[in-house]
Amino acid sequence: MRFFRTKPGPLVLMSYLLANITGTFLLLLPWATVKPGSATLLEAWFTATSALTVTGLIVVPTDTYWSLFGHTVILLLMQIGGLGLMVMATLVLTALGMKIQLGHRALIAQERNHFSISGVVKLVKNVVILTLIIELIGIIALAMLLPGIWDNGWLEGLFFTTFHAVSAFNGAGFDLTGESLAPYKDSSAIIFVFTVLILIGSLGFVVLQELFVSRKWKRLSLHSRLVLWVTSAIALVGSFFYYVTSIERGVDELPWVHQLVYSLFQAITRTAGFTTEPVTIWAESFILLMILMMFIGASPGSVGGGIKTTTFGTIILAVWAFVRGRKEVVLFEREIATESVLKAFIVVVTAALLVFVSTFFVMLVEGLPFKPVLFEVVSALATVGLSMGITAELSAFGQVIIGLLMLIGRVGVLSLITILAGREARKARYMKESILIG
Amino acid sequence: MRFFRTKPGPLVLMSYLLANITGTFLLLLPWATVKPGSATLLEAWFTATSALTVTGLIVVPTDTYWSLFGHTVILLLMQIGGLGLMVMATLVLTALGMKIQLGHRALIAQERNHFSISGVVKLVKNVVILTLIIELIGIIALAMLLPGIWDNGWLEGLFFTTFHAVSAFNGAGFDLTGESLAPYKDSSAIIFVFTVLILIGSLGFVVLQELFVSRKWKRLSLHSRLVLWVTSAIALVGSFFYYVTSIERGVDELPWVHQLVYSLFQAITRTAGFTTEPVTIWAESFILLMILMMFIGASPGSVGGGIKTTTFGTIILAVWAFVRGRKEVVLFEREIATESVLKAFIVVVTAALLVFVSTFFVMLVEGLPFKPVLFEVVSALATVGLSMGITAELSAFGQVIIGLLMLIGRVGVLSLITILAGREARKARYMKESILIG
Ligand SMILES: [K+]
Ligand SMILES: [K+]
Repeated sequence: MRFFRTKPGPLVLMSYLLANITGTFLLLLPWATVKPGSATLLEAWFTATSALTVTGLIVVPTDTYWSLFGHTVILLLMQIGGLGLMVMATLVLTALGMKIQLGHRALIAQERNHFSISGVVKLVKNVVILTLIIELIGIIALAMLLPGIWDNGWLEGLFFTTFHAVSAFNGAGFDLTGESLAPYKDSSAIIFVFTVLILIGSLGFVVLQELFVSRKWKRLSLHSRLVLWVTSAIALVGSFFYYVTSIERGVDELPWVHQLVYSLFQAITRTAGFTTEPVTIWAESFILLMILMMFIGASPGSVGGGIKTTTFGTIILAVWAFVRGRKEVVLFEREIATESVLKAFIVVVTAALLVFVSTFFVMLVEGLPFKPVLFEVVSALATVGLSMGITAELSAFGQVIIGLLMLIGRVGVLSLITILAGREARKARYMKESILIG
Repeated sequence: MRFFRTKPGPLVLMSYLLANITGTFLLLLPWATVKPGSATLLEAWFTATSALTVTGLIVVPTDTYWSLFGHTVILLLMQIGGLGLMVMATLVLTALGMKIQLGHRALIAQERNHFSISGVVKLVKNVVILTLIIELIGIIALAMLLPGIWDNGWLEGLFFTTFHAVSAFNGAGFDLTGESLAPYKDSSAIIFVFTVLILIGSLGFVVLQELFVSRKWKRLSLHSRLVLWVTSAIALVGSFFYYVTSIERGVDELPWVHQLVYSLFQAITRTAGFTTEPVTIWAESFILLMILMMFIGASPGSVGGGIKTTTFGTIILAVWAFVRGRKEVVLFEREIATESVLKAFIVVVTAALLVFVSTFFVMLVEGLPFKPVLFEVVSALATVGLSMGITAELSAFGQVIIGLLMLIGRVGVLSLITILAGREARKARYMKESILIG
């Protein structure tokens, strides 16, 4: 077991790989598709990868192509991917009564980007309980709201509801309607439930624990406050510009509650990839804003991807400090360590370079125009799943690139670099009040 | 004179503003246009700004709209803008026999991003002499090569030649042909002369001095080596992908010398903005690559803009160091200071944010698609002047934004922030072997 103790990094990658291969294999089974045996290796791998990384990009229609068995595999992959394989592994080990080694604990802390090693086991329990409670509330809410789901019996209705609640909370964006949330676009209540589920899932378990478990709302950690500020700012800016750029399509003629919920949903879905309308009808300027919002993504330790809200917040604070001629990057009267700032910049630049290189080569090989390729690449790397509709039309080369970007995005640029560089999890670094990057 | 000694920054801005206003005024004069009195304030301001910042974006055709007087104003603005107003100011002061104050010297060092205060006066002399020699060689070369320029007499021929040599060396990209270098696209010799003039102008005077004045080729400074490496790498990558993406337009059927020169020119023109063919016929993937190459731009202390080759080199080295798990960013066996690395990241991110915000608002207001707006915004901020043809069609709002971006780009994001923050020029910082950023 020396391997696991000294180099925990590869275990993460191997677990992802194992789940990826298992998922692909299961989706290749004849009874995974409606037409028996019709899934190609690429279709199965892409779909399994998309579900495991909770991205939601698809190359075949989820509802009509995959069978109930296929849908179940996708549901499980989303849940496994969302909760985090390492959390699952620890759970299994705990259930078996095994003493968790320090090296292994450090790994979970690293995978979820967590502060300290102490209390990881407790955290994992809280994570799972919280996830199940929120998903259960989501299932109940959707069961009461979604129209016509009981038409084919209660079992199918319950599966349909569960699938969407899990897909929403884990920010996966998979749907069984064939057109995402378009059928429910006129119901403020349904859109609101999805918005809340996606939002909670995108905050990260550190924030959720502080908000819902320990409930010390007046003394939130530096990390949680930064997450809540940046998330709120993006939600505000995103909603506002969605509203402004959608007036020409008559959004201002809806009831005002629906205007609010509908606009808010468009900003929040940047981490999940559900849509109420085709992305292609959005104004060009809002598409550009969405590319940035997707790139920023969710918060550390959450089900979402992207460079993370705290990373974005840190670089904005750093630029602002520089503009004001200050050497220290200050947040809520605390100084952010130079190392954190540098790390934030490295994450942003590495992700941007990855986006550039991928976009360039996909365009070069596929001969496709700039905007949809950039959109799809950012959507994949940030595990968003919003699409301008080109993913299904890409050649095998393009689909493999998009698939690899989803995997890289889920593992995280920073984690991937750290793992590949073969460094040990740095246990001492995250001890004090510190900002999570990447 | 206390003002100049304690706060030199505003002097730079004021000088630019003064030159900008004077240029605008001169182009507003009735005899500046072919049709007397036909220039609007916006046309005159935009053209003066474009010439002063050596960008080359235009809203009216240079050749048919402006008179010989107008062309002369543009020529002088390009020369003033390229050489740098502060170098000019110092020259004037030296000529008047005034003792240059330390504060003022520091300013020039800052404006040209130079290493040390000692030797600034000598440097300025070298800069001017070098500029004039290179431009003279350019004029002679072009006078021998350009076809049909003597048809309207030697005076007009000489002006035509001088205009293009100055425009090329100062990376301005203004032309009197009405279609840039398209008339000369079949002459390897002419394209080669332009390529060399642009390339030399983009290296920066520190590098030029080491290459041509002190000639210590075997012991080039860290700075010069980084400049030459990054410039070569971009030239190689840019030429290669221009070639690859242009085979469908038959570039591989040209004589091989012409293939080489022609492809090299397309990578080098990223700092000047001359073209041999409309930008719009380029492959989408090459347009994306060009956006990055423009964003990177020229080298510090040169006539060009962008985040600068050394900034790009530094962040690449920093990312590479991080991937390898190293804490030190090492270049040619020297460690780059953390402060330099952080500064490089701040320049990149600030420039990227500026590009994003400008692109977003121009798209929002003008209702134009993503790609040409992004291209034009990057072209303006990096004072490149390549255009997808939308600048002339923008509303006043869009043209003012583009004009302001050119000014910000010429002053430099870093310098502008430093000046606005009201900090003193840091004299002690650049004393030892160090990397120039921004
Ligand atoms: K997603
Ligand atoms: K230019």
